[in-house]
Amino acid sequence: MRKIKIQAPATIANLVCGFDILGLAVNAPYDEMEIELLDKPEIIIEHIDEYNLPTKPEENVAGASLIALLEAYEDKSIGFKVTINKLIKPGSGLGSSAASAAGAVVAANHLLNNYFDKKDLVRFAMNGEKVASGVKHADNITPCIYGGVTLIRSIAPLDIVELSTPDLFVTMVHPQIEVKTSDARQILRKEIQLKDAIKQWGNIAGLVAGFLQNDTALISRSLDDVIIEPVRSILIPGFDEVKKNSIVVGALGGGISGSGPSIFMLSTTQDIAKMVAQEMKLIYEKIGINFYTYVTTINKNGVILMTD
Amino acid sequence: MRKIKIQAPATIANLVCGFDILGLAVNAPYDEMEIELLDKPEIIIEHIDEYNLPTKPEENVAGASLIALLEAYEDKSIGFKVTINKLIKPGSGLGSSAASAAGAVVAANHLLNNYFDKKDLVRFAMNGEKVASGVKHADNITPCIYGGVTLIRSIAPLDIVELSTPDLFVTMVHPQIEVKTSDARQILRKEIQLKDAIKQWGNIAGLVAGFLQNDTALISRSLDDVIIEPVRSILIPGFDEVKKNSIVVGALGGGISGSGPSIFMLSTTQDIAKMVAQEMKLIYEKIGINFYTYVTTINKNGVILMTD
Repeated sequence: MRKIKIQAPATIANLVCGFDILGLAVNAPYDEMEIELLDKPEIIIEHIDEYNLPTKPEENVAGASLIALLEAYEDKSIGFKVTINKLIKPGSGLGSSAASAAGAVVAANHLLNNYFDKKDLVRFAMNGEKVASGVKHADNITPCIYGGVTLIRSIAPLDIVELSTPDLFVTMVHPQIEVKTSDARQILRKEIQLKDAIKQWGNIAGLVAGFLQNDTALISRSLDDVIIEPVRSILIPGFDEVKKNSIVVGALGGGISGSGPSIFMLSTTQDIAKMVAQEMKLIYEKIGINFYTYVTTINKNGVILMTD
Repeated sequence: MRKIKIQAPATIANLVCGFDILGLAVNAPYDEMEIELLDKPEIIIEHIDEYNLPTKPEENVAGASLIALLEAYEDKSIGFKVTINKLIKPGSGLGSSAASAAGAVVAANHLLNNYFDKKDLVRFAMNGEKVASGVKHADNITPCIYGGVTLIRSIAPLDIVELSTPDLFVTMVHPQIEVKTSDARQILRKEIQLKDAIKQWGNIAGLVAGFLQNDTALISRSLDDVIIEPVRSILIPGFDEVKKNSIVVGALGGGISGSGPSIFMLSTTQDIAKMVAQEMKLIYEKIGINFYTYVTTINKNGVILMTD
């Protein structure tokens, strides 16, 4: 095979209490990409979307990821042409850059007959994240490549754990304001109270147990962040109201997606997930901020290969 | 039934990275207790062991727990006589006080035809822990009552999660030195680095996933504590050597039991668990500190009722 189309899903990093360690892939939105294997050592990036992202390979998220992949590949005479239709808005907190990075390497690996394993692909795509945010983080890339909920127990050495989950519905709202990842990181305190950390790790342990034991009530009780959310949520107008009203209409809970500004909520039924979207809509219409909402499900497969 | 004998097991709090939230019950050592229902509102405590513990009910761990239980019971005309043969040494870090507290309320509840549920019993026994250490902690009581590995997601409100585990072997060594719980708590820093907390919650998430997914390699990788152990282990001579040598002979890992001085190690086979005990023996013989070792398994039932 010389050419493949893929869909690279949006992802939700942190999952409230799992700052820097947990992530979740969703079925919508997703980026569309086409990757073609070339007989020359060259990487060509083409964007057919409206975002005017850089196309020089070393400055492009997908490009930087493919450079890392090709460095590890035996045959130095090949290259890739990548055509990207970005449907996950950059800066939304929904893993837009991770989708480009992960999508590119998963597709390329398929064209190389799965020469690399998934963990290798995460490592390559981390180079793409570095281009986007200056940090080689993996909490969006990993669920994008593996699907479902993933735990990064440790980043060095890289230790990835796939966690099974109940079939939950996910509602997301992307209020059209800008929150830079670097700003969202800078306002965090470098020292935290031990007693808060204990609460946080109780919730993380509860959330992991809730996912693995299919205990949605436990998931709901554990979706509580006493460390990051109280600081970061200040950057997101309407956050407290979205959270409160979503829970009133039946959501299990939720919080900031990645470093924001998007907010996500988990629900057990599609009806609740739609009511949550309606609440989000009312709140941002009242505030007068443009927004997008999504009602979707957990993506359990990661990047989807489109075979015709 | 008017009288019952029980065995109340030793417990390991914290489980390395789960400070204040995780605990594990083991099959040995255990306290032996006999509880008799009385027709008068009185609590009588008798110790038939060598430890000269207080026998005034309000100063005794079992007594204080039973006072709390009787306060919540409808019939105010009853009481209990408790005879305790303490086989878990006080101050060992193996949940000696929790065993008395949990044993007393589980036995009493049996004599009251299980009027209370397990969570009620944890609450009553926390009053016993308060007598012992000044703090109403539940991380030993909970596994003692529920068995197996337990997570206390939150202490207020009390939220207990039972975690299934692989059938592991447990080796413990109790070096005969005194480490006061209050001292072990005081030397901890009240503020910790966010980056250390992130490592810790990655490990806690990994440990919970390892238990629930029967993944002993993941359990092994997750048994790492970057916050508490580096501070507390200084109080325990031989700690680093015990840990290093245990892992060399094949243990999955381990650390300080509760606030010490006992050290525990988890292993997948009895042979390894015995080799670990042998390493512990060699180390404390060399240092010249008296010690006890135990090779046992996870207690999956909690307090055992001895029906003749």
